[in-house]
Amino acid sequence: MTEFTKEEVGYMSEALRLAKQGCFTTHPNPRVGCVIVSDGDIVGKGWHQSYGGPHAEIHALHDAGKKAKKATAYITLEPCSHHGKTGPCDEALIEAGVSRIVYATEDPFEKNDKSMPDKLNDAGISVSVGLLRDEAKQLNRGFFSRVINKKPFVTLKLGVSIDGATAMESGESQWITGEAARKDVQKLRASSGAILTGSGTIKIDNPSLTVRDEMLKAIDPIRVIIDTKLQTAPDAKIYQDDKTTWIFCVDDENKTLFQNKNTKVFKVEKNGNYVNLRSVLEILAKKGINDLLVEAGSHLCGALIREELVNEFVIYQAPLIMGSNTRKMFHTPGYNKLNESLRINIKESKKLGEDIKMIAEPIYRAEA
Amino acid sequence: MTEFTKEEVGYMSEALRLAKQGCFTTHPNPRVGCVIVSDGDIVGKGWHQSYGGPHAEIHALHDAGKKAKKATAYITLEPCSHHGKTGPCDEALIEAGVSRIVYATEDPFEKNDKSMPDKLNDAGISVSVGLLRDEAKQLNRGFFSRVINKKPFVTLKLGVSIDGATAMESGESQWITGEAARKDVQKLRASSGAILTGSGTIKIDNPSLTVRDEMLKAIDPIRVIIDTKLQTAPDAKIYQDDKTTWIFCVDDENKTLFQNKNTKVFKVEKNGNYVNLRSVLEILAKKGINDLLVEAGSHLCGALIREELVNEFVIYQAPLIMGSNTRKMFHTPGYNKLNESLRINIKESKKLGEDIKMIAEPIYRAEA
Repeated sequence: MTEFTKEEVGYMSEALRLAKQGCFTTHPNPRVGCVIVSDGDIVGKGWHQSYGGPHAEIHALHDAGKKAKKATAYITLEPCSHHGKTGPCDEALIEAGVSRIVYATEDPFEKNDKSMPDKLNDAGISVSVGLLRDEAKQLNRGFFSRVINKKPFVTLKLGVSIDGATAMESGESQWITGEAARKDVQKLRASSGAILTGSGTIKIDNPSLTVRDEMLKAIDPIRVIIDTKLQTAPDAKIYQDDKTTWIFCVDDENKTLFQNKNTKVFKVEKNGNYVNLRSVLEILAKKGINDLLVEAGSHLCGALIREELVNEFVIYQAPLIMGSNTRKMFHTPGYNKLNESLRINIKESKKLGEDIKMIAEPIYRAEA
Repeated sequence: MTEFTKEEVGYMSEALRLAKQGCFTTHPNPRVGCVIVSDGDIVGKGWHQSYGGPHAEIHALHDAGKKAKKATAYITLEPCSHHGKTGPCDEALIEAGVSRIVYATEDPFEKNDKSMPDKLNDAGISVSVGLLRDEAKQLNRGFFSRVINKKPFVTLKLGVSIDGATAMESGESQWITGEAARKDVQKLRASSGAILTGSGTIKIDNPSLTVRDEMLKAIDPIRVIIDTKLQTAPDAKIYQDDKTTWIFCVDDENKTLFQNKNTKVFKVEKNGNYVNLRSVLEILAKKGINDLLVEAGSHLCGALIREELVNEFVIYQAPLIMGSNTRKMFHTPGYNKLNESLRINIKESKKLGEDIKMIAEPIYRAEA
């Protein structure tokens, strides 16, 4: 394994910081950052800013100009070597005359030319891989999941009381969590390619599921609705605006009721009497969804954990005891004994306004 | 208000640290610490070690010996001036020749002679009050609650899953939380004068509710059981050992079934069909209980919050999703709308082993 210096860790950290600026705007492309370093000075910086636009390397080389000659390029992802919407970055790096390339992690994207390192070596450029690899993979976990696992990275978000209630029995749930948590949810939405919910949430809450924070310039996430028998009201808010909504059902008899050109109905296979959720995720991956945010009720959330499809939980716990006349977080008919329930690993728990924000990952049986 | 120097804050902090060493052994007496300072040096230290034993000041004066002359005594509580199980401390301080006394907070104990500061002034001793008062009151919040509010400080402890379940529907609840949380509960018990539970918990879990950690030399907390119709099994574990158990009921017909000399049955007034919990707390205060720890099921916990009798929550959240076939934390028939539920203030939330330990205080309607 290549050893890297403290300075190099610093350069790659800066490249990662730059890459993060593309969090809301690059998908389905990955988030990528690049810094060009000459004689210990950062002479060029760039990041992939928007889907279809120039890659990070091109921005950074442009920023460095002639100083790129004999410099080292630190890139958070293996430079592309294929002709897509933009030209291949490896050739641009060769042309600019860099003498060394350090990238954090390999690009799993299948179209990439696996002979790329050879091409660079032939041009006299030395190549090192693996600096801050974990951090770089984490940044693009949705992209990696889509390309490698053929499904999006699934984040399940819940706003609950300390005693685990998501709503009163009546359905009343606004506003359990505070301002800071709601702002944070806007960021979660903005960094997701799609938001998944169920027909129950459409019926009860009639949400828009859009990015409302105007400070966040984001690609509008696609709203994905699981509506097994296509029974949500066609005049629900989510079917009225100019943003894309996809409905997944097993029975599309009512399909013609959904007239908005932005609303598309997908008929998928059954799993019992329900939409096969794994199939939905596979379709979403094929359509370029890297990160899927789930904002749903207990039935859909329960089904997703029982089918082991959730990758991460983001739980906002409000300082509230809602008591017993309430709805629980997860409907889980299969959990009858403690050892049948789902273990999680709490990765982070911190105060956010008056609430607690907790990030956790499931430990599914196969791994446990 | 008296201004205190940074050095003085340091002396009182040390006195508070000493006082905490009595957390498991002084009740119903308060926890008190004392340092004697001469020419900037701490020349004597003491703390109240056990109920009925010498007070903090006596230990500290003994430790200082002749160096107490013209020294300053920093004490976490107003020195006593009455003849109880031990002689009055103000006279001991006068006799030792200290020139100044700084104490953190007044002693609310009614037997205290309110002319004490005059007595000290007459002896040429200057007296200052209020250094780290809040911290000193916090340390003895149970003692203050008992003396001033005529009820113990009530801490409600719960071990729950992230989704707010305390047990599976079957009652299965061992072990939701981890080793570190269970050890922490032993400390909570050891610092409590009594532990409160309900008949349901005795029937389902058959607990001992003792301090099992042999490292904690503690006064055995009294087990207090709410058993409205006196229907728990007389052969339950809690009635078999040599530690004290008090049962509160409204119907004591079965009283003679409880033969263990350590078990005492109290008949109290009704509140609806249930034991009047406020009366129970008043009786416990009269009997010298400063700190009451509640370890109970959803009905008793729910009744305590609805009657606004809980002062603090200690909630251990385990990294577990237990799902929908589970028991909730609080049975609250009166909470039907969000604004009828109980707001809390999360004072602390931190990882403890694999669990999260959260400390919160209720914000009752009158205060909200």
